[in-house]
Formats: sequence, C-alpha cells, structure tokens
Amino acid sequence: MRVAVIGASGYTGMELMRILHRHPRTEIAAATSEQRAGQQVGEAFPALRGVVNATFESLDPKKLIGRVDAAFTCLPHATAAPVVAALRKGGVTVIDISADFRLRDPAVYEAWYGPHGAPELFSDGVYGLPEVYGAEIAEASLVAAPGCYPTSALLPMLPFLRAGVVEAAPIIVDAKSGVSGAGRTLQEPYLMGEHDGNFYAYKVAAHRHGPEIEQEASVAAGEAATVTFVPHLLPTIRGIGATVYLRLKQSLSTADARAILVEAYEAAPFVRVMPEGETPRLSSVRGSNFCDVGCVVDERAGTLVALGAIDNLVKGAVGQGVQCLNLTQGWAETLGLEEAPFSP
Amino acid sequence: MRVAVIGASGYTGMELMRILHRHPRTEIAAATSEQRAGQQVGEAFPALRGVVNATFESLDPKKLIGRVDAAFTCLPHATAAPVVAALRKGGVTVIDISADFRLRDPAVYEAWYGPHGAPELFSDGVYGLPEVYGAEIAEASLVAAPGCYPTSALLPMLPFLRAGVVEAAPIIVDAKSGVSGAGRTLQEPYLMGEHDGNFYAYKVAAHRHGPEIEQEASVAAGEAATVTFVPHLLPTIRGIGATVYLRLKQSLSTADARAILVEAYEAAPFVRVMPEGETPRLSSVRGSNFCDVGCVVDERAGTLVALGAIDNLVKGAVGQGVQCLNLTQGWAETLGLEEAPFSP
Amino acid sequence: MRVAVIGASGYTGMELMRILHRHPRTEIAAATSEQRAGQQVGEAFPALRGVVNATFESLDPKKLIGRVDAAFTCLPHATAAPVVAALRKGGVTVIDISADFRLRDPAVYEAWYGPHGAPELFSDGVYGLPEVYGAEIAEASLVAAPGCYPTSALLPMLPFLRAGVVEAAPIIVDAKSGVSGAGRTLQEPYLMGEHDGNFYAYKVAAHRHGPEIEQEASVAAGEAATVTFVPHLLPTIRGIGATVYLRLKQSLSTADARAILVEAYEAAPFVRVMPEGETPRLSSVRGSNFCDVGCVVDERAGTLVALGAIDNLVKGAVGQGVQCLNLTQGWAETLGLEEAPFSP
Amino acid sequence: MRVAVIGASGYTGMELMRILHRHPRTEIAAATSEQRAGQQVGEAFPALRGVVNATFESLDPKKLIGRVDAAFTCLPHATAAPVVAALRKGGVTVIDISADFRLRDPAVYEAWYGPHGAPELFSDGVYGLPEVYGAEIAEASLVAAPGCYPTSALLPMLPFLRAGVVEAAPIIVDAKSGVSGAGRTLQEPYLMGEHDGNFYAYKVAAHRHGPEIEQEASVAAGEAATVTFVPHLLPTIRGIGATVYLRLKQSLSTADARAILVEAYEAAPFVRVMPEGETPRLSSVRGSNFCDVGCVVDERAGTLVALGAIDNLVKGAVGQGVQCLNLTQGWAETLGLEEAPFSP
Repeated sequence: MRVAVIGASGYTGMELMRILHRHPRTEIAAATSEQRAGQQVGEAFPALRGVVNATFESLDPKKLIGRVDAAFTCLPHATAAPVVAALRKGGVTVIDISADFRLRDPAVYEAWYGPHGAPELFSDGVYGLPEVYGAEIAEASLVAAPGCYPTSALLPMLPFLRAGVVEAAPIIVDAKSGVSGAGRTLQEPYLMGEHDGNFYAYKVAAHRHGPEIEQEASVAAGEAATVTFVPHLLPTIRGIGATVYLRLKQSLSTADARAILVEAYEAAPFVRVMPEGETPRLSSVRGSNFCDVGCVVDERAGTLVALGAIDNLVKGAVGQGVQCLNLTQGWAETLGLEEAPFSP
Repeated sequence: MRVAVIGASGYTGMELMRILHRHPRTEIAAATSEQRAGQQVGEAFPALRGVVNATFESLDPKKLIGRVDAAFTCLPHATAAPVVAALRKGGVTVIDISADFRLRDPAVYEAWYGPHGAPELFSDGVYGLPEVYGAEIAEASLVAAPGCYPTSALLPMLPFLRAGVVEAAPIIVDAKSGVSGAGRTLQEPYLMGEHDGNFYAYKVAAHRHGPEIEQEASVAAGEAATVTFVPHLLPTIRGIGATVYLRLKQSLSTADARAILVEAYEAAPFVRVMPEGETPRLSSVRGSNFCDVGCVVDERAGTLVALGAIDNLVKGAVGQGVQCLNLTQGWAETLGLEEAPFSP
Repeated sequence: MRVAVIGASGYTGMELMRILHRHPRTEIAAATSEQRAGQQVGEAFPALRGVVNATFESLDPKKLIGRVDAAFTCLPHATAAPVVAALRKGGVTVIDISADFRLRDPAVYEAWYGPHGAPELFSDGVYGLPEVYGAEIAEASLVAAPGCYPTSALLPMLPFLRAGVVEAAPIIVDAKSGVSGAGRTLQEPYLMGEHDGNFYAYKVAAHRHGPEIEQEASVAAGEAATVTFVPHLLPTIRGIGATVYLRLKQSLSTADARAILVEAYEAAPFVRVMPEGETPRLSSVRGSNFCDVGCVVDERAGTLVALGAIDNLVKGAVGQGVQCLNLTQGWAETLGLEEAPFSP
Repeated sequence: MRVAVIGASGYTGMELMRILHRHPRTEIAAATSEQRAGQQVGEAFPALRGVVNATFESLDPKKLIGRVDAAFTCLPHATAAPVVAALRKGGVTVIDISADFRLRDPAVYEAWYGPHGAPELFSDGVYGLPEVYGAEIAEASLVAAPGCYPTSALLPMLPFLRAGVVEAAPIIVDAKSGVSGAGRTLQEPYLMGEHDGNFYAYKVAAHRHGPEIEQEASVAAGEAATVTFVPHLLPTIRGIGATVYLRLKQSLSTADARAILVEAYEAAPFVRVMPEGETPRLSSVRGSNFCDVGCVVDERAGTLVALGAIDNLVKGAVGQGVQCLNLTQGWAETLGLEEAPFSP
C-alpha cells in the first residue's frame, strides 16, 4: 500500500516514517514538508539517513491522487481539513492526526478551534480509538486519530463509565506529558535550558483536549459528563501519564474495579492492565503502541483513581493511526506495531 | 549558634550544610553519620570539599549536650524520636525533619508508622509550617518540620479551606516529586537507567503524607477533611509540584480566588502568588525556600484548582527547618535563606 | 533457531530480548537469571509484559544442551568463560558479550581481568566486529562481541591506520558513555540523584577497554599501537560518542580523509559516514545498530580527529552480537536489526 | 557599588543578577534588555520575582554614566566593544563578558570574529583569569572575562606548561559543555526534544575559543603553542568538563604532576585540586565559582591527562567576572561567591 506522510517534518511525521519503515504492507510513497521541500529525509533528519529514502516535497493534494492509496495528515488543525477534503475526493483513505474530525458538535469545534476548514466533511470522520470504535473504524475511509491526552485518559476511564459504577460528573483528569507533545516548535519554554528539570501545569481547565475527553466520556456514560482537565509538562521527551479521579456511585473494591478493566480489554492487544499494586510507567510503554492502565479505589473517600500511560507519539498519535489503518484494510491490528517498548 | 546536623550524609543533611554554610548566625558544630563516621565531609561529598570543614562522627546524643545549642534531626521516622528525646533532655532546641512529631493523633501515627519512639514527647512538637503556625513556632523548642508533599499541597490549599469557600471533602491532591525525595537510597527504581525519562504514580491513596495533609486540612476547615493523595515520581532530581482539586461551595471567579491567596500570604516572605494566567514552576523555586502558589477556577465544573511548587529539599525540608529555627531565635525569618532560585 | 539469553535480567539481556522479539528467524528458548529465577520476564520487567513470554530460570549449561541452538552469554567476565566452555561442548553456537574471548594475548587478559575461566578456549573466539572480521565470523561458532567503547572508537579509527596515513602512536581516545554501560548495578554514582546533570572522566588511562582498542589498532596498523583511553560518563541512559585523535603522517584534507572512511564502509550496512560538516550524534543512532562515523583534519596541528557514535546496548553489545549470529548462519547481516533509530 | 547588568535577559545576565543579589557590596542599579525593556525582571523571569526588583531598560550607555560605578557587558562579541568604549569614557569600571577584549593579536581577533568595534581600546583589557593575572586585574578598569571553555581548559593545563614538563605542541583539548553555553538562543538543536539524551562534537577544530586557549597556552609555555580544540554538547544545562592531553617532555609520576597543580593553586580560593584517584565532576562545582582540577599521567604513552570542571555560567562567565570585580576594588576575592555548590 502506497502511503503519503503529510506534514512529515514534525515529530509525529518522523515517528510515522519510523513505524512505516517496519510495516510489511506499506511503503512511503510521499513525504511532504513546506519548509524542507527538495531535501532528502535523511539529510534533514540524520537519524533516518539510509533508512527512509524519500525526498520531501511541497504539498499539492491533487498531485497525490493516483500516487497514494492512503495518507496520514500530520498538520495543524484547520490546515488539515481542506487537505483531507481534497484527498477524500480522490478516493484516498485518510488517517487524520489533527483535531479536525474528532469532535461531534460543530459548535464545540468552533468554540475551541475556530472555523472549520471543510464543514461538509465534519461528520464523516470516525473517532479512531480502536478499543472503542473498532467496528466503525473497519468500515471507515476517514479516521480521526484521537488526541494524545484523550487517549491516555479515556482508555483507563471509559470502562468504569460504561459499567455505571462512577458518576459522569465531576471527573478530574490530571495529565502529564513529555515535551514532544508540543512538536518541534521553536518557543522558549521548550528549550533544554528552560525545561530540563522543570515541571508545571499549563492551560488549566482550558486545553483543547478537554472537550474531546468530555465528549467520549459522555458517550460512555450515556449522559453529559463534566471533566476538569489539567495538563502538565514533564521534563522528558516522550510519554503521557494520566491520573483520573472518578466519584464512585457505590462501594467497590480495587480488585473488582480492576476486573472491569480486565474484561474491557481482554481482546485488546495494545492495552495492558497492571496487576494490583503496580502502576503504569512511561518507561514501560516508550516507543510502543501500548497503553498501560491500572486503578486503585480509595474507598474512604469514595474515589476511584484510574491511571493510564502511553507514548504520546505512538499510541497517542501515529501508532494509533497505523492501528486504525490496519483495521480499515482488514489487516491484523498489530501489523507494523510489534516493536517492544524501548527500555531502558 | 552551634548547630548539629544529625543524619548528615543523606540529601537533606547535605542540603542543610549547604544552607548553614551561608547562614550568618550558625556554625556546624557536629555532623553525624554512622556509615561515614571518621570521614571528612569534603572527602565524602566532593561538592563540599573546602566548603564544610567538619568530620562525620557517630551519633551519641549525650555527647552533643553542651557542644551544640540546636540540632536538626535528619533521620528516618521512629529512629528520630529517641534521639530527639535525649537532645531535649539536654536543653537542645530541635528541628526534627523526620515524621515523628508531625501528627496529632497517636493512633494515626501508629497506623501509618508503627510504634512511636518517644511517646512522652508525642505532643510536644509544633508543626513547623511558619505561614500557619508562626507564633507557636516562635515559642517552640521542638519543631516538626512538615513533610515535603504536605508543604507543597497545604500552602496553596489552606487559605480556601479557612475562607470557607470550598468543601472539606472530597479533596484531591495530585503531587509530583523529583527523585531526591527518596533520599540517597540504593534501590533499583532510583537508578538513572531506570528513572531518566520515566514517570509514574506510586502508593496511590496509600502514602504516609496523606494523613498529614488531611490533619492540617481539617484544622483549616474546622471539620474533618477527606483527602485522596496520589504522589508521582518525576524524572528530575529536585522539586515538587502539587495540583489540588477542591469542590467549590459557591460561585467564585479566578480573580476572587487569587485574592484569597494574596491576602493569606501578603506578609509571608517565602510564598509568591502567581499572577493570573501563570502557574508555579519547579525551575522558578529550585534551590530556594520559595513556595509558589496559584489557582484557577473551573466554574463549569464547580472545581477550584490550587497549585503549588517547592524545592523539596529546601522549603520541603531543611530550608523550612532553618526558617523555623530563625523564628525560635527571634531572628529575621529569612536569615540564611536569601539565595535566589537556581535557574537556569 | 532456538536461542538462550544467559544473564537475561541485566540491560544487555533485556535489550537482546527486545531485538530477538522482532527477529524473524529466532525464538527465545531460555532466559536465565539467578536473582529472578522463577519469575515471568514480564513481571520482572513491565516493559516486556505481553511481549516476551519466557520465565527466568537458573543457569545450568548442561540442561540447555539440546534445548537451544545458540546462546548469548551476557555475564560478567570470568563468569562467562566456563559457561561458554560447557555450551561449546554441547555444540551450541555462542555469542559471548563478556570480555572473556576478546583479547589475543593471555598475559594481557590476565593483567587486566585476572585468571581466565577456560584457558583451553582462549584462542577459539573470533573478534565480532563484522566490518573487519566478517569472513572469519561467518565461519565461527564462538564469537566475542567487542566492548562498547572499542566499537565506538575502532570503527572511525581503523580505516586510517590501515591506510597508513596516521601514526600508530600516540593515539588518544576520548570517549563518553551513557550510564547504561554500567548495567543495572546498584551503586551510588548511578543513582538519578547523583548522575542527572553530572559528567566526569573515570578510570583515566586505566579502563579495561584500553588494551582491547590497542590490540585492534595494532592489527590495523601492522605495528604496535599506543592508545591513551579516557572514558567519561554522560548524564543520559544510552549512547557512546568517541573522539579519536590521530597524528597525521602526511598532509591530508578533510575530504580525502572522509574518502577513506567512505571506501572502507561502502559495503557496511550499519556504518554511516557523515557528510563533511556534520558530526555523529547519539540521538541519530539511539536504539539502532548503526555506528555513525565522521572526521575532520586539523592540518595546522597535524591531527586527524575521527568521530564515532553508537547505541552502547545495540551496536556496542547485543545488536552487534545479533549481526554476528546472522553472519554465522548465513542470513542477511541486517536480519532483525532493521529498526530505525529512536528519535526524538 | 552601583552595578549595571548590560544584556541582562540572557543566561549570563540572569546568573549575574542571582550572584549580585547575594553580594554584600553591590546593588543592581540598571539591567538592560532591548527585547524586554519596560518589563519587571521578576515578570520576565519568574525565578527572580520578589528577588530582583529592577526593571529592564533599553541600553543607552551615556545615560548610565553617573548612575553606575561598574558594568558587566553580557553582549554578543562586536556589539560589546562600542558599549564598553562609551562606558570607559564615562569612567565606569567594565567587566566584559564578551570576547571583544580577550585576544592580544588584532589579526587573530579579526580572523575569528570580524572587524573589532572599538580598535582603540583593543589592548586595554586585562585577561580576567585571576589565578594567572591577579595582580594585573587588581589594577585594571577594563577586564575581559575569559571564555567558558578556555577557563575550564587553561586552569588544569597552564601549570604544566609553565613548569616546562610538557610540550607546547601538540596540545589536545576535548571539552564538553552543557547547553546553557549557547545561551537562550531559539534554535532547533537546543530544543529539549532534540537535545535531551543527545551528545555530539561541533565546530571540530574550528571554534572561536581555540585561539584564546592557544594564546594563553603560548604565554605560559614561553613559545608558540598549538592546540586542537574539540567542543562537544552535553545533554544537561550547566557545566563544562575539559580533558586536556599533553605530551610529556620527561618521565613524571601522577603524584609529581599533581604536586605541580597543588603548588600552582595553593593560594587560589576557587581552584580545588582533586586527590589522586578522583576526577573533577560537574555535580561538584554546579552553581559555584569553583574550578576543580586533576591529572593522571599515562607514562606508557608519554601523555599527561589534565582535567578541569566548572559551572560555565559562574566560573566560566559572570562568577569569574565578579571575582575580577572584587580584585579591582581591593575586596576579598571571594565576596559574594561563597555559595556552596548546588548538589544534589
């Protein structure tokens, strides 16, 4: 299968090329970058020298029609939608890594992101969380890969909402991300001199991934959920750890809570439920498509603590995208994603 | 003033020597370490070579009587109490860095720490949070320096409980600490190879600092508080960031919430209230005795998010201890603690 | 092919399991660890949970005969040799990751490592640097995988010695390694609290890899080489960067020097020669079996600076071992080692 | 003494304000920054909030005359010289942190830096290495603070050249710096995502600090020295470690070599000579004005390895500058610089 990597010079683009390089059924047929058009991938990114033999090109969606069967759009929100529209017209299967097709309510999209770039397609995307929407993804030709924070928070949280053992409001999501989540942006806070050894909350209860988490929590709960989402920046490159606080509706032991997770994910190849007494760790998922989940009940307080850990660039972005592509093609869900976590 | 550093070869002991070295009214009259007895401080810790000219000695509390006027006990809990008892008998002012005199309820102490080593002194300690108990500390000769996590969580949280604008239950404290919080312990998880780039929750709702936070939250609220405390380990050496989630009793703007913090700390030299839109950062407090605090109201969810950041070894341990010592002596609260944060 | 990982609970053992998991022609038939015998690999190392389904067992070489076709011995020097001897008796192909079969002169071995554990096999090992000894390795059934430092220094250095453009003495090798080179050893200097942000030289001109570098430099030069080897410890987990200083025998431009490297490695799939103006970087080789090499001539000083970068656990240890195993079996040299570098 | 910090918003400027804040004889009378003019220092740099109460202003040297007694110019080379000239006309004592007054040969300056901005002052600066030029600095009103790399390399190296026990050519300086050496520059290689866990050589034998090292080595040797200088970038914020390789003229034991260092620095409060068997470490000098030095003789190879470690922002820049200022004023050399190293 001929695949285009659109927006290939950012961190998600690079990671996607790293994964596709090992995928037995795909070849990188195009890699676009406005800034680096004309450069060899391996010149621009020495890590990929001799590994990926593509040349960056300027993006012209029309010229990709016929050259590629599928495309990953690793572009900023709003920029992605018109590109997706053009590719879809040409029959290209699209895995969109941007935020443009994740939300179900146009008003919510507009409130958080501004005007949408292809309103006619707004509802065509399937939310690309395979552990929840596997069947829908298998039929889809436009998949909206979930945000990194939502992936890390939803996988540990949703089974409890679906099981009806916790309240839909208030839900607290305290999440911590490595700095690659901000991409390769040249901004002072992301300099090594500023960020090594640093840690802080940002966009407290005001981050765009909040409504996305709330949307999927509401679906799972069958009622409107209210999520207070507080992201933090970790002094490391990769990984997200999410700690989710849910109000119990009823008494529940940690063992019973864990059983809910185990049942939810027994057929999910990329979700590992931690044994009681262990918590998900960034070092155990780094470089892999795993989401490790766990839970602890604080019975005294009536609180269930659900925990998730992912590699934000893999399960939180393009790894999950490849998992979705596999599903759309009827391939094994794990194809190209078998790599063991990178540890130590 | 002649000061003994008891348990001087751990990270808190080293940090204390670093601070006392700049303190204009103290001299290090003794530094004890069982493991390193007989070694020069500067041999054991090359950073202090030519700076601290003491020799480690074995601890014999009786032999310190008469030689020192004050002592910091940087020992593990249970071990500290009998040493404190011996020193107190000799009239030595004690700043205890262990957990032995922080709790008010012997049953709670025993449940979390086991039998107490000096029950007759159990209630003699003053909780060494100067921003709350300044007057009591000024009269004290046994001060229990608060835990590192409690300091980071209580300072941003207490003013709201005292003001009565938030519920005493449920309170959620999601805190993240650098690895120096574990001391210089030789355990696999603290190896650089294991911990660099790593992050995870541990002792979820089961950490000993939970009851300590709950105790002080209850005092501030005037009723029993319930705290779910979840600590996490950051891939860095120093610093704690605490994010506290409180249920609002009433509508409150972020500006009004911030005003409560500003009023609470207007006379506190070491608490800086962040401007609206800024959050406390580890890099801004590193190496200093500052606790930076801030808050954001999520009105939609009825949640107040209070944030704190400290250097766990300074404001979270011996810096706060020196602040307390200054108060017991009637010295300026800031003496020896004027150092600017270490940044970048 | 059934493969045993002997000494599987250290960092090289873990990395080997990570690589073998993706290797299409091997299965992990045994994983030994004295400390962890009886534990599931995935219990001991959560990163490998659900990935490697082996159980650690105590090492008994005799019991491996018939169960395995090949073995990697990831054991400390001296301990490895008798195990290798037992396995060889049973016809098992051995890739030894220890230092026991790297040196050609028994006196040198004894001077640096003490008595050898299987003197009768001392000369049976082939030095496992495929870019130099590819033909010999293809015929071998006992391969001594080179040390991590030697690999990083020899690959950039040897072509110049072979070409006769530099002196064999004095050679200076200034090398810098991530902390995983020390293994998972519980020693104070390797604690995150001690090593993050730290850097220093150690075993100056007294490290065991010195004679190994000197041995291979001498072979390449055709005369006795003298190497001053100074290793340093970097504040990171993985990677070695080596900077080698060679005395020019004659005038030589950087371009001509680079041409020597290009010619030497045109058929080597894992050695990438940097373009003029670029230097090898740890981030470009991390997680891969690549050795990036480069050079700059300081004509004014008559010095050629040769540079190398590897991932110490991959090309510096078990990745190179797998490359050797591939050669012994007549498989493609790159089998199981196609993974792109892990960046960012 | 009223001091101006010119170029106060970079890392050296910030560090200088941190130091001056503790200096008992100075006050920060002006802090200039074009980018941040009008901002409070504490707004721009939250670490200094409530610590440094200055407001950034645009630089107009004439307006500083009469307002300040001394100035530190933390400006890029070429930009600094005209400012220095204007300040000197007004009688202001200047400690220049740029490279503009370090070199003695105008042709060398021009070859490496381009046209000089104040040629009439070119020879007026005293090279601000107090351990070598203490007497000259005491008489100076224009001090050129040495480069960070030169400081780290010269202090361990010069005593051997002065003693005549090593050759002046070839000298090899292999140095490794934390990323703060590049300042707060917004360039891709300095992003946390690019640099954490990374390491590489750059400007091999082509860095501007090369001729500066060579100049001072030549003075010490009494003949023209030839230095091959290779800088590397460490994955940390602060610190430089330099490893210097010198050719012995004669047989010399490590103990005798060390005695040369001890004698050279017995009166130097900021140079600590490591005991035999120990090497300088970044963690032992971090945040302090110390330069730790050590040496090992590799007799077999006829090579003396000299080692140095500094904090690049302190002893490698403004700490050394303050040390020089102290000398010019006849104050104790250590005034304001007594802070113990920041460890852990």
